[in-house]
Amino acid sequence: MIAEIIAIGSELLTPFFQDTNSLYLTGKLNQIGVEVGFKTVVGDNPDHLTSAARNAIARADIVIFMGGLGPTEDDLTRECVAAALGRELHRDPQLITELYTRFAAWRRKMPENNEKQADLIEGGVALPNPLGSAPGQWVDAEHEGAPRYIMLLPGPPFEIKPMFDQQCLPRLKEKLPQQFIATKLLRIAMLGESACDQRVAPIYKKYEDVQTTILAGAGDIQLHFRCRKETLEEAQARVDAVAGEVEDELGDYVYSSNGETLEEIVGLFLQMRGATLAVAESCTGGMLGQRISSVSGSSRHFLGGAIVYANDMKNLFANVPPMLIEAHGAVSREVAQAMADGIRDECRASIGVGITGIAGPTGGTPEKPVGLVYVAVSDGKKTEVVERQFPGDRERIRVYATQQALDLVRRFLM
Amino acid sequence: MIAEIIAIGSELLTPFFQDTNSLYLTGKLNQIGVEVGFKTVVGDNPDHLTSAARNAIARADIVIFMGGLGPTEDDLTRECVAAALGRELHRDPQLITELYTRFAAWRRKMPENNEKQADLIEGGVALPNPLGSAPGQWVDAEHEGAPRYIMLLPGPPFEIKPMFDQQCLPRLKEKLPQQFIATKLLRIAMLGESACDQRVAPIYKKYEDVQTTILAGAGDIQLHFRCRKETLEEAQARVDAVAGEVEDELGDYVYSSNGETLEEIVGLFLQMRGATLAVAESCTGGMLGQRISSVSGSSRHFLGGAIVYANDMKNLFANVPPMLIEAHGAVSREVAQAMADGIRDECRASIGVGITGIAGPTGGTPEKPVGLVYVAVSDGKKTEVVERQFPGDRERIRVYATQQALDLVRRFLM
Repeated sequence: MIAEIIAIGSELLTPFFQDTNSLYLTGKLNQIGVEVGFKTVVGDNPDHLTSAARNAIARADIVIFMGGLGPTEDDLTRECVAAALGRELHRDPQLITELYTRFAAWRRKMPENNEKQADLIEGGVALPNPLGSAPGQWVDAEHEGAPRYIMLLPGPPFEIKPMFDQQCLPRLKEKLPQQFIATKLLRIAMLGESACDQRVAPIYKKYEDVQTTILAGAGDIQLHFRCRKETLEEAQARVDAVAGEVEDELGDYVYSSNGETLEEIVGLFLQMRGATLAVAESCTGGMLGQRISSVSGSSRHFLGGAIVYANDMKNLFANVPPMLIEAHGAVSREVAQAMADGIRDECRASIGVGITGIAGPTGGTPEKPVGLVYVAVSDGKKTEVVERQFPGDRERIRVYATQQALDLVRRFLM
Repeated sequence: MIAEIIAIGSELLTPFFQDTNSLYLTGKLNQIGVEVGFKTVVGDNPDHLTSAARNAIARADIVIFMGGLGPTEDDLTRECVAAALGRELHRDPQLITELYTRFAAWRRKMPENNEKQADLIEGGVALPNPLGSAPGQWVDAEHEGAPRYIMLLPGPPFEIKPMFDQQCLPRLKEKLPQQFIATKLLRIAMLGESACDQRVAPIYKKYEDVQTTILAGAGDIQLHFRCRKETLEEAQARVDAVAGEVEDELGDYVYSSNGETLEEIVGLFLQMRGATLAVAESCTGGMLGQRISSVSGSSRHFLGGAIVYANDMKNLFANVPPMLIEAHGAVSREVAQAMADGIRDECRASIGVGITGIAGPTGGTPEKPVGLVYVAVSDGKKTEVVERQFPGDRERIRVYATQQALDLVRRFLM
């Protein structure tokens, strides 16, 4: 049982943009035992799209089209898939009504060309899209006597993900033979990729029936384990066993074994301790607050804080004495510590965090090069400060700095 | 003249890895007037690869295979492309000698199976690979009387890039007529995709010789124009003409015509006016500060501000009277305005911004639903407040809110 994922859009054939939805869909398909056999990218060209659809229907059991469901003349997926299947399109009155209702709720007038979003392929079922104006479609078909499951899904990630999870996966599960696949994900903070692999390779290589994949980001490593067996219990036992051995080896470098992000783990720890958090950010300019508050419900433990980008702000909001900055420089262990203590006091939080560093590409000196970052955490009694020299460009250094800050808070709360 | 790029490797069909070489090759191909019509990803499966090769040779003038040139049994590109072309493979004695020489220089004994890397497709030319053991191949072919240029290239980015630039591009330029291509990019803030297209489609459709691509994000639209002519001047004149007409139509919705981001434009405007900016963010939790400070050099005009996630913080850092919050609610026009005024005063900035809203997924009410956001900008004399109802998930609503804030500042400074 293999799938083909077809991403549609001329922009995906430029040097600038890349399909990323297919990674998400592949993960979900793998979980129900479907492997992706082909991925195709095709532009907003009716001949190309129709021929790509024909090829896919001939060679894959499951064909997922992404994009090209919008209201413009470039949006051709409905027409081309219908042509490849040799079926007609019908404008569905119910869908038209829903489109007008949605626009009314947004307090916007619906442009007339949006009506083509109500075109359904003969025999297809509309997939409601609560997050956008383009409904998806599910079509059951056949190729030389073999069943084909065909999905037309919208391109924007925030639309396609819930539509696939809530409407396509349940339908696929009903159609496909049951599979037993277990996966496990360990996430590891602030450990280098080679150092990590040297420690864990001798473990996962013993598990030949478990597929292991290592992904490394800025201060973040993911270890993915995957196993297929006759029963779910057997598969689960194997991924649990390898993950258990790896956790024993890496200790508290492992911050999550259930897929939680570091932001979520920090939130959980704060909640468990009944603690609140405030941040003072210089070089990260708000990125730490943004990451913490990206988790829904974070208002229970995250108070806020200050973006103390200019030096005056460090004094104004976090009570950092100007003389301290003069004496040690804004990027220093002392200032990071004063920021953490000061913002904690100001906000009456249990825990304060201070970040100061040089994100570059300019502003570095031989003594304080680009990538130098100080991160401090304080609870009013004790303070911890970490000095790090991060590699990479401005963006990567800032991500590293926030990752270090989150990890320091996690360890502080452990 | 179109190209198809085929990436080969089962790892590229997992949720974890993605081909990025094709972006690089696409940029280079575009420069010599070649469009990429299709991209395909296929695993290390001989049937899949052979059928993908056949499809590509039938529909594209230029076919580039990436990967699968190694010495293992999984490396099948040579065999499958030969099969698709109906040609034989010959083991080339010269290439065998070079492989042994290369291994000798590395002081390693060459495993016998590496000899298959010396297999050349009948009529093919070897492309030396100074950076790896896998030579590439160039094959001239035909499909129904039309010429086909076929390249087999290695997968690793540091091998494929120099091989393509130094050996494939010069050959392609010789074969293809010389081309002159001009491009232009307009960026548009806070205009809906359909509304935008309705206004600009009548313009760009008149320019049949200009290729137009529309990309829409949260409150951000990119219009890419591209034209090919006999001379560069002619091509440039056409993209300038269509872009000029679109700018006339959309007026100040267009924030950049040279590729700058909205963050960069706001930074430039602040600098031009000698103004400084401070922000008070509630639902966006630091994202606005993070976006502004993502631009190197932003410290010249961005002072910082406060993440006033909890209500107390709105008073503490931005002097919002608690009674105002009680009377109107934290998510209200009045509080947004007080945040903008207050943070401006506190930071002694020329301009203050306040953002308050409901990012969801929880916390919405019938009167104040998820997605409701107020954004205020103040310069101490006048204040502007915008109320918006944004669609999408938590992340998207937050991106929209920061986009609205940046755009409001831009308009305020115009």
